Amino acid sequence: MTSIQLYDTTLRDGMQGEGMSLSAEEKLRVAHRLDVLGIDLVEAGFPSSNPKELELFELLARERFAHAEIAAFGMTRRRDSRADEDPALRVLADSFAPVCTLVGKTWGLHLEKVVKVDRDENLRMIAESVAFLVAQGRRVVYDAEHCFDGWRDDPAYALRCLRAAAEAGAETVVMCDTNGASLPGEIAAAVSDAAAQLARSGVQLGIHCHDDAGVGVANSLAAVEAGATHVQGTMNGYGERCGNANLVTIVPNLQLKLGHDCLTSEQLATLTPTAHFLDELLNRTPNADQPYVGKNAFAHKGGMHVAGVMADATTFEHLDPALVGNRRELLISELSGKGTVQARADAAGIALDDAGSRRVVERVKELEHRGYHYEAADGSFELLLRKESGEYEPLFRLESWRVIVERRADGKVETEATIKIWVGGERYVRTGEGNGPVHALDNALRAAIGEIHPHLNETGLVNFKVRILDETKGTEAVTRVLLDASDGQDVWGSIGVSENVIAASWDALVDSLEYAVQPGRERHEQALRDAAQTGS
Amino acid sequence: MTSIQLYDTTLRDGMQGEGMSLSAEEKLRVAHRLDVLGIDLVEAGFPSSNPKELELFELLARERFAHAEIAAFGMTRRRDSRADEDPALRVLADSFAPVCTLVGKTWGLHLEKVVKVDRDENLRMIAESVAFLVAQGRRVVYDAEHCFDGWRDDPAYALRCLRAAAEAGAETVVMCDTNGASLPGEIAAAVSDAAAQLARSGVQLGIHCHDDAGVGVANSLAAVEAGATHVQGTMNGYGERCGNANLVTIVPNLQLKLGHDCLTSEQLATLTPTAHFLDELLNRTPNADQPYVGKNAFAHKGGMHVAGVMADATTFEHLDPALVGNRRELLISELSGKGTVQARADAAGIALDDAGSRRVVERVKELEHRGYHYEAADGSFELLLRKESGEYEPLFRLESWRVIVERRADGKVETEATIKIWVGGERYVRTGEGNGPVHALDNALRAAIGEIHPHLNETGLVNFKVRILDETKGTEAVTRVLLDASDGQDVWGSIGVSENVIAASWDALVDSLEYAVQPGRERHEQALRDAAQTGS
Repeated sequence: MTSIQLYDTTLRDGMQGEGMSLSAEEKLRVAHRLDVLGIDLVEAGFPSSNPKELELFELLARERFAHAEIAAFGMTRRRDSRADEDPALRVLADSFAPVCTLVGKTWGLHLEKVVKVDRDENLRMIAESVAFLVAQGRRVVYDAEHCFDGWRDDPAYALRCLRAAAEAGAETVVMCDTNGASLPGEIAAAVSDAAAQLARSGVQLGIHCHDDAGVGVANSLAAVEAGATHVQGTMNGYGERCGNANLVTIVPNLQLKLGHDCLTSEQLATLTPTAHFLDELLNRTPNADQPYVGKNAFAHKGGMHVAGVMADATTFEHLDPALVGNRRELLISELSGKGTVQARADAAGIALDDAGSRRVVERVKELEHRGYHYEAADGSFELLLRKESGEYEPLFRLESWRVIVERRADGKVETEATIKIWVGGERYVRTGEGNGPVHALDNALRAAIGEIHPHLNETGLVNFKVRILDETKGTEAVTRVLLDASDGQDVWGSIGVSENVIAASWDALVDSLEYAVQPGRERHEQALRDAAQTGS
Repeated sequence: MTSIQLYDTTLRDGMQGEGMSLSAEEKLRVAHRLDVLGIDLVEAGFPSSNPKELELFELLARERFAHAEIAAFGMTRRRDSRADEDPALRVLADSFAPVCTLVGKTWGLHLEKVVKVDRDENLRMIAESVAFLVAQGRRVVYDAEHCFDGWRDDPAYALRCLRAAAEAGAETVVMCDTNGASLPGEIAAAVSDAAAQLARSGVQLGIHCHDDAGVGVANSLAAVEAGATHVQGTMNGYGERCGNANLVTIVPNLQLKLGHDCLTSEQLATLTPTAHFLDELLNRTPNADQPYVGKNAFAHKGGMHVAGVMADATTFEHLDPALVGNRRELLISELSGKGTVQARADAAGIALDDAGSRRVVERVKELEHRGYHYEAADGSFELLLRKESGEYEPLFRLESWRVIVERRADGKVETEATIKIWVGGERYVRTGEGNGPVHALDNALRAAIGEIHPHLNETGLVNFKVRILDETKGTEAVTRVLLDASDGQDVWGSIGVSENVIAASWDALVDSLEYAVQPGRERHEQALRDAAQTGS
């Protein structure tokens, strides 16, 4: 059916949510993931609202994207001034972004109480700002703020605002439910009215919703059914208050249920990992109940459900989880677990028999009950598979370790770790220093093991995350540490769980290094190197 | 407008969610809270599916409710048998519950693949089961499972199922979107069709939705607009997979936005505490972004938003938070301006002039660039305000601290922290042990300061979160620690940022304790205590 333009504002409006913060480098990674997912327009923010945004646009200008285009965001010109003399519009015109999104007022209440601009001047602000950027060679998306509040109050004036942007050359005018006040019926009526009135102008109509009434997704769908072909939203519905409309839910609804054209099926199958990547980057617990991509979204509990799903999945599943990159969870069936384990072992080239798979399932069940979580710890999970298959070689035998962190009287902080380990009948005592305890332990361990496994020197820690589980239990709570390590090509995760954050970090660190030196992995790397040489 | 019957199935369908578990006593407390909220029908489960359910019905039978009626839940009779000989129907007939809810099949696919019952026998199962309970003096709610899947497949048969229940004397027939497959348009079409076809039978039409497509709330609203007057759902949307339709969102939408009659305004004002009570009872972190009742639902960030809300709340709030028992929050971030800072200082009783507010804004901008983040660290933010206003008293002068974490050869992990500080010209050297470095530092610090500020012994750490910022930079990355502390009534957050996780934890810990002992805060607490005494 209709082709829908997807506009992601995670990096701008999503960042308005409580506790949301990403560095410029991290935002760049997000932009690339959105590109792979197939998002058409990635809104990156205002190119110079602070040093971090400035840095981001400098980074973005040098990047190549397969499909996505970057949109810079700004406001209409200040009142009673000229667009071509407006410093903020000049910043947009000077940025590399091919698309500029401008936000402006639509609602009389805001004109009177917030910005104190008269209605005709507001129309000139819209028209002149859009025209200025169009004259500078930019494609312009015009975001009509509080459009539905304006529509309820004075639909004729709201329409004049949209028309001002359209006639000044905007490619898209977006009706924004900024306060999230509207229900689907109101959205449908206003969009279909606007679509009819603006039909001749040839402008594309867009929708931007928030979830304050819990209907942000339904509102976006209602707008598309009423004629909008550009949909704004954020990943996982991030955003201030109750969040923006959730693109992760909207996209499969549009594509799989309403038959619109948004993404290729390969792109759609990356939806679940992309959604989880964002949560991990933001150190947020992924919402297990999230439609389509949540861990529980296709979980089945209770005998009849499971039997029904086994007989014919359509009896209890509204669609095939693989379409969105998710999978079925059978909460009471060991069979499903075994199959997954087997598949993972096969992929890693580990020979695991039926009894071994069953032991892994039992072990994972027991460990997850203690707070382990293997979704983001593929390295630790592979070690677990190896342990049950017999293809595991411990890196060393531990005698003891000790970490000292000291803030001296002169204000300097020093960290030192000493380890005592046995490798091949020989005792190694090594001390490492570092920026922090994990870094120091890592250095000490590498000082010992690097002599035997020199290629470990090419690997390093790239990420470290700590979360308290069961926070309400206070000091009895356990700490979960997730580490990511990389050898420059591959990245693997490992996990440690303990009452003590340093002990949990140690366990994750050891897994991280052991994973790197497993013979299976070395063979795999050699095979990759051989293949690369043959190819060159 | 129309009066809507609210049917809560938290105690039955809500309990199907992952990790959901309540004792019979706890379920009784829930029933009473739902009664106070004004729920019409509280579904409690099957009166004898296990000993816990049996105990619950025994407890419920002795209770008095102001308004709510208890519904017992069961299935239609087994195939090829008699309703009056069906043991499960007999249990319902023997229970005290004035309302019995029966679930039965509507969808051909399930009849063929899951229960293997022919279509005519299914109609007899529905009719005879309903008639049996009606003859036993019960009011019957009939839940037509997979009704919308059935409607898509064979609307005539789905309608015959509804009609069978209606003609056998059911008070209400409920169209269930059991798999959560439907979108609002389909729901509206099927309900309005059913309403027209069943108009003469006088039966009440109900709706029961799930959130698999993220539109459970919108589907419920669409059904009401199409003629349903009985709405089933759960508190906070608990339920299997993506959850049931969320009554906490549906009710204010129906009442405040669509003008239906559900609760009194006094009852509606208990919505937020009731929703939080359920989360507390289930030991779940309340969803801060939840529409209407979430902590962030009426939170404002960004200078213009805050200025607008201060001028006229309707500019940025879709309704008054007090209507649902919630309140407004002003968040601090690099994007917010002087107005927000001033408002926060006023709320904390700190005298901050215009120049001071400006200094705070500049300071926050600079600190946020270094990785600080004050939204979740209200305690640290208040200290920052105090520092700029001159109303700040440091807790101590630090000389040095040292943390040792050791994993001994016997496998035991020991943690010890020593601090050297000066308070009022006197030097304190104290050592603390703990589960981890933060716990040990906390103990050492309290050992010193607790002598001067004994009420610190009533405060404690309740949460600890660590994140690496700019993870791609590896070892140059900084670590951000967020701590939450509580004195049993109030919870405050503090933050520390450093290359070293222990140093960052130390900074957050000091803020956390300093916040607790600021004279302003102590005065505030005293005022609260005085008010409480006068009131008693």
